[in-house]
Amino acid sequence: MNIPFLKPELKAEFRLRISKVRTEMAAAQLDAILVASTRNLFYLTGCVFRGYVYIPAVGDPLLFFIAPSQAPADTPYCMQIRKPEQIAEILNQLNMPQPQHIGLEFGDMIYADIERLKRCFPNADAADGTTPIRRARLVKTDFEIEQMRQDGMHQTAAYSRFRKCFREGMTDLEFQIEIERILRLEGCLGIVRTAGARMEINLGQVLAGENADNPSPYDFSMGGEGADSSLPVGANGTILRPGMTVMVDMNGGFNGYQTDMTRCWALGQPAPLAFKAHECSRRILRELERIGVPGTPAANLYNRAVEIATEEGLEKYFMGHQHKVAFIGHGIGVELNEAPVLMAKSRDLLAENMTIAIEPKFVIPNIGAVGIENTYRVTNSGLENLTEFPEDLNQLD
Amino acid sequence: MNIPFLKPELKAEFRLRISKVRTEMAAAQLDAILVASTRNLFYLTGCVFRGYVYIPAVGDPLLFFIAPSQAPADTPYCMQIRKPEQIAEILNQLNMPQPQHIGLEFGDMIYADIERLKRCFPNADAADGTTPIRRARLVKTDFEIEQMRQDGMHQTAAYSRFRKCFREGMTDLEFQIEIERILRLEGCLGIVRTAGARMEINLGQVLAGENADNPSPYDFSMGGEGADSSLPVGANGTILRPGMTVMVDMNGGFNGYQTDMTRCWALGQPAPLAFKAHECSRRILRELERIGVPGTPAANLYNRAVEIATEEGLEKYFMGHQHKVAFIGHGIGVELNEAPVLMAKSRDLLAENMTIAIEPKFVIPNIGAVGIENTYRVTNSGLENLTEFPEDLNQLD
Repeated sequence: MNIPFLKPELKAEFRLRISKVRTEMAAAQLDAILVASTRNLFYLTGCVFRGYVYIPAVGDPLLFFIAPSQAPADTPYCMQIRKPEQIAEILNQLNMPQPQHIGLEFGDMIYADIERLKRCFPNADAADGTTPIRRARLVKTDFEIEQMRQDGMHQTAAYSRFRKCFREGMTDLEFQIEIERILRLEGCLGIVRTAGARMEINLGQVLAGENADNPSPYDFSMGGEGADSSLPVGANGTILRPGMTVMVDMNGGFNGYQTDMTRCWALGQPAPLAFKAHECSRRILRELERIGVPGTPAANLYNRAVEIATEEGLEKYFMGHQHKVAFIGHGIGVELNEAPVLMAKSRDLLAENMTIAIEPKFVIPNIGAVGIENTYRVTNSGLENLTEFPEDLNQLD
Repeated sequence: MNIPFLKPELKAEFRLRISKVRTEMAAAQLDAILVASTRNLFYLTGCVFRGYVYIPAVGDPLLFFIAPSQAPADTPYCMQIRKPEQIAEILNQLNMPQPQHIGLEFGDMIYADIERLKRCFPNADAADGTTPIRRARLVKTDFEIEQMRQDGMHQTAAYSRFRKCFREGMTDLEFQIEIERILRLEGCLGIVRTAGARMEINLGQVLAGENADNPSPYDFSMGGEGADSSLPVGANGTILRPGMTVMVDMNGGFNGYQTDMTRCWALGQPAPLAFKAHECSRRILRELERIGVPGTPAANLYNRAVEIATEEGLEKYFMGHQHKVAFIGHGIGVELNEAPVLMAKSRDLLAENMTIAIEPKFVIPNIGAVGIENTYRVTNSGLENLTEFPEDLNQLD
């Protein structure tokens, strides 16, 4: 099988990914899939380019690129086109069958763009191609795990330098801006690819004091008022003062993959409840690290976390106070929010080499948010932490 | 007319915007429009929230919000719902007609989300609602102009501090990171809302030396290799050296609106061609500022710019060298890339209070990019510059 590949040394890797997608295509009864979103082009080729990857159920995948592009045209099955309307005719020229049930990225692409692609295959039924690709992406390859491991190393290296940039009297925003600079100098690319339309963010969230209790319309675990009504999430200009906690949940995207990581600091002497809840978050993580083996229902992780928080009398602060979310973690990889979602109604089972971020967090009124988030790999002996870094609620000041 | 408004002091403003949208709805023969994208919710209400604005052709608009939200529920015509499937029944309860031709945001929303909304109105034909709203947004209100004026003031204030953070031996990325920090400290929100799926970027582009000649798959005027194959645009780690030019095209979003602005610096003594091309960019801007009055075809601005570049023998460098783009500017507002696009095939005419970014740029092989970008308001006496700031190709080192 020839496949379009842009990094020759990764030919086997991308062949593996194509075969994973094909397994899901078969389950969804698709005889072809056409990929156009930047996230999935990157997944399938290791590059973002203007163009398409066409994967028939049988035979060689084709890569179509539209100039300008950094995609080299010197591999077989890699063709330059001007517009997607040419693809069907090229299939004819190559004596390849026209698709009858084609998968298009219904969950990743804009409506008008999908409608245009549908018209390129007038004799095909179009069906959702997002779900099969997301399912293929659920379990990471060894190469992907290594990319995420690298991400985690960069992210923890950056986190080790955040405390040093705190200065008395600064706001949450000023603290966040220094953190962003550290992340960027560490190699953070500065964008967060998310699934769906319910997340907009700059490089993450710094939440201090009672701002942690402000709801946000986005799908993040925590809220925050934000600095402007056009982006109501995260830091809002709160001055960092003694008695508060400061939660830092900032971007870990360095190579097209992401790790997700949260640490918290104390200012002055927050009430003991904050420390108690923070320790409860660590207890939850230790427990989930133990039970998070292949075959465990994702729902169990959520339910067990709720049990522990309830046992400790902390349920009213768990995963929010004024506003609560109904999950404690999520898959992560090319996108920040991948499957599985760790929530009560999830039907997913953990599998080896899934990567999941777990974030048991508490919002303590008038004090702030506490808790830890790590990104893990699912292994046969439990969860392996890709964001190993001290978890104590240490002093920031 | 009662309208949903979230900032009471802006009631008249948002009434005006609703009426602009209704004018375009009438032209598109829509009897209602349902808005759900964050950009258009912000346009219509001044806030981002989880929910919908329903605008019937006649009668009061309705605002539906899904908790959690910062949207106050204390105004009439503002209702909490759990899911959009409830909207049709609420229309019945209010004795409002069911829509027959409903506009949905085909160009702003993900396919699967539009399909869900279509099913909420099974007896309606769904049509494109993106175009009417974009047309309504073409001409800015006085309030919007003021927001953009404020943006321009922040952006130019930030630009005045960029040169000071240059240090010998730094890379384009390191320079960009210091610039990002300055922008963020000035109040830049740190996201760039763009139309369509062809733009992904962190806070903008810093292009130095021959990296300016690297193509990018995205729809920006300039390219650049980027720091990683997952985000192939902009700075790539080029060390800033004498003989290069450095182009800085960094984010101007401070309040939900954006201004777009580019300035360039020289390092050492770049070849005279760079200075000649830079002066040509200024000459083009002065000419377009003069002819850019209401009624001027957007295409004329493009054609006149090409004429001037050609007159000066610079056409092979104009708007790119290895790769060229076929536009010299674009509308701007809530989104970075709004209508009209300043290109040969545009059919738009300028109108008073349109806001457009004009960016005549040149890529000089082995030296870098030069040129200026300003954001303008169209007035009866020509273009008013909202990003007034020295335009010389000054020394960075």
